[in-house]
Amino acid sequence: MHSINVLQQHINHGLNNLNIPEHPENLYGSIRYMLQIGGKRVRPLLTLMAADLFSITDITKALPAALAVELFHNFSLMHDDIMDNAPLRRGQQTVHEKWNPNVAILSGDNLLIMAYRQLAKCPPEKLPQLLEAFNTMATEVCEGQQLDMDFENMASVGIDDYLRMIRLKTSVLLGTALKMGAILADATEVDVNLIYDFGVAVGIAFQLQDDILDVYGDPAQFGKQRGGDILANKKTYLLIKALETAGTDIRPELDRWLATDGPAEAKVNAVTVLYDRLGVRQAAELAKQRYIEQAYAALDAIGVHTTRKTPLRTLAQTLLNRTS
Amino acid sequence: MHSINVLQQHINHGLNNLNIPEHPENLYGSIRYMLQIGGKRVRPLLTLMAADLFSITDITKALPAALAVELFHNFSLMHDDIMDNAPLRRGQQTVHEKWNPNVAILSGDNLLIMAYRQLAKCPPEKLPQLLEAFNTMATEVCEGQQLDMDFENMASVGIDDYLRMIRLKTSVLLGTALKMGAILADATEVDVNLIYDFGVAVGIAFQLQDDILDVYGDPAQFGKQRGGDILANKKTYLLIKALETAGTDIRPELDRWLATDGPAEAKVNAVTVLYDRLGVRQAAELAKQRYIEQAYAALDAIGVHTTRKTPLRTLAQTLLNRTS
Repeated sequence: MHSINVLQQHINHGLNNLNIPEHPENLYGSIRYMLQIGGKRVRPLLTLMAADLFSITDITKALPAALAVELFHNFSLMHDDIMDNAPLRRGQQTVHEKWNPNVAILSGDNLLIMAYRQLAKCPPEKLPQLLEAFNTMATEVCEGQQLDMDFENMASVGIDDYLRMIRLKTSVLLGTALKMGAILADATEVDVNLIYDFGVAVGIAFQLQDDILDVYGDPAQFGKQRGGDILANKKTYLLIKALETAGTDIRPELDRWLATDGPAEAKVNAVTVLYDRLGVRQAAELAKQRYIEQAYAALDAIGVHTTRKTPLRTLAQTLLNRTS
Repeated sequence: MHSINVLQQHINHGLNNLNIPEHPENLYGSIRYMLQIGGKRVRPLLTLMAADLFSITDITKALPAALAVELFHNFSLMHDDIMDNAPLRRGQQTVHEKWNPNVAILSGDNLLIMAYRQLAKCPPEKLPQLLEAFNTMATEVCEGQQLDMDFENMASVGIDDYLRMIRLKTSVLLGTALKMGAILADATEVDVNLIYDFGVAVGIAFQLQDDILDVYGDPAQFGKQRGGDILANKKTYLLIKALETAGTDIRPELDRWLATDGPAEAKVNAVTVLYDRLGVRQAAELAKQRYIEQAYAALDAIGVHTTRKTPLRTLAQTLLNRTS
């Protein structure tokens, strides 16, 4: 098997050799900028790790699919940032801020097309299966983003709707990244589905953890302002659960804080106290734990020797044991 | 061979059976709306006509590729309308106006993905070649749109740059629509390239005609306000040629009109008079004629019996002989 380090080198080498044209400069300069901002490149790593798990003969055969996943991820970030009106991405100006929304729309479009250009480089006999997996995921990610935007304007959202939204918006991409690596390595259909389930469950658990860390994480390490979701009245697992469980003793106070814009620190502290009284953190931790168990159950059931699964298990643990 | 009417029925049937989901309503309602607004469906017709020209055994085999072309076209219109801040499309409210820009961004994204979903239904043995053609075209259309936006902010644009821009922005899609039909019908590589060249040349001639009609067409039949390009100082073939050829006798007056916002009728009339004095209409007609000849030369060179080419020749004539 390949070390994580070697797999990451393949990914970096692939990203550095995309042969992005120089002109038109607005179109390609903004794409180079976005790809340069970086990120952890977890998704393409998952594709290569899955291919490695199922003993692909030549790991570079899985590289175009891995790059397609990373390009798709950057396409969706670029367009989401416009829709969310986000000024910063990974601490840097977003493309629609640094250039303008039109450049971000068109460069995002081109990133999506670049993803398909990478897919087209995959072995022809795998193309129909890979396209099916990728297209399904891509549609679902769009649906998830639409639901997320719709939720902002809805009076109430249920926990199941929320879980469905985060599954679509963020988790199916992790599952599909793994699935494509497995397909390329000729894994059985059963194993392809199991590794997909593993990725989706890890993704949901990760998002739940993100909701928890927004309120209970160490801001210095988490890299975001504590309580950002609370200040934005974002319908996270915590808020939805709080609204669902708050009785007449707590609900009026919660509603009052939701109706005010600040002062920021007072709002974050007060809502956190209400969350504590309602025990929504524990509920979220429990839900997270349930998805982690689902994830490991799927990984355990995959028909290859346990030792080969260690890197993926370790990666999941790293992703899911952030305390801040 | 199939009549145009039968081919159009296949396309309409295909578009009516895309099985677009009901939810999320914002995402799919806006896509249904966009597809319903209609248009002439010339591009998917080209795909089926090319497949028919090269005697595809079953015309329905080319339908997914034809639908992919139409979905791609609608994706690019939806995003272009945001970028151009266009209030109307085919006389109806644009999606970003009727909903909002975020819906138009996301629904456009999903239309592009839907195009790839159709492509994935093409015969597996043709997929690599079709993806290559489609991806190349898709990237070029983005590049063309970027150049078009860039031109707005440039002091001067050359005729060659302009021709390159319209080739990318609008013509390669016509060429690729035909090319995909030819690929699906097992046309030779030479014939695939010839029919592509035919489509690209028709597309450029059509755009030049569009530039001419904006100034010299009958507004009642052309369906647009006469002189809209003049009022917007749009760098069309006519304006670029006028700026290139105007000497010291005409250039100051032309510059003066370009620097004013109106009154609208006076500006259109005055600039038209200058165009007449400079003979730019004739120059544009000549350029259009050159591309028409290129188109027919390519069509003539295709290795099938002349009579089979009649429907495509007739369609090109219809498209390129609009006098208004």
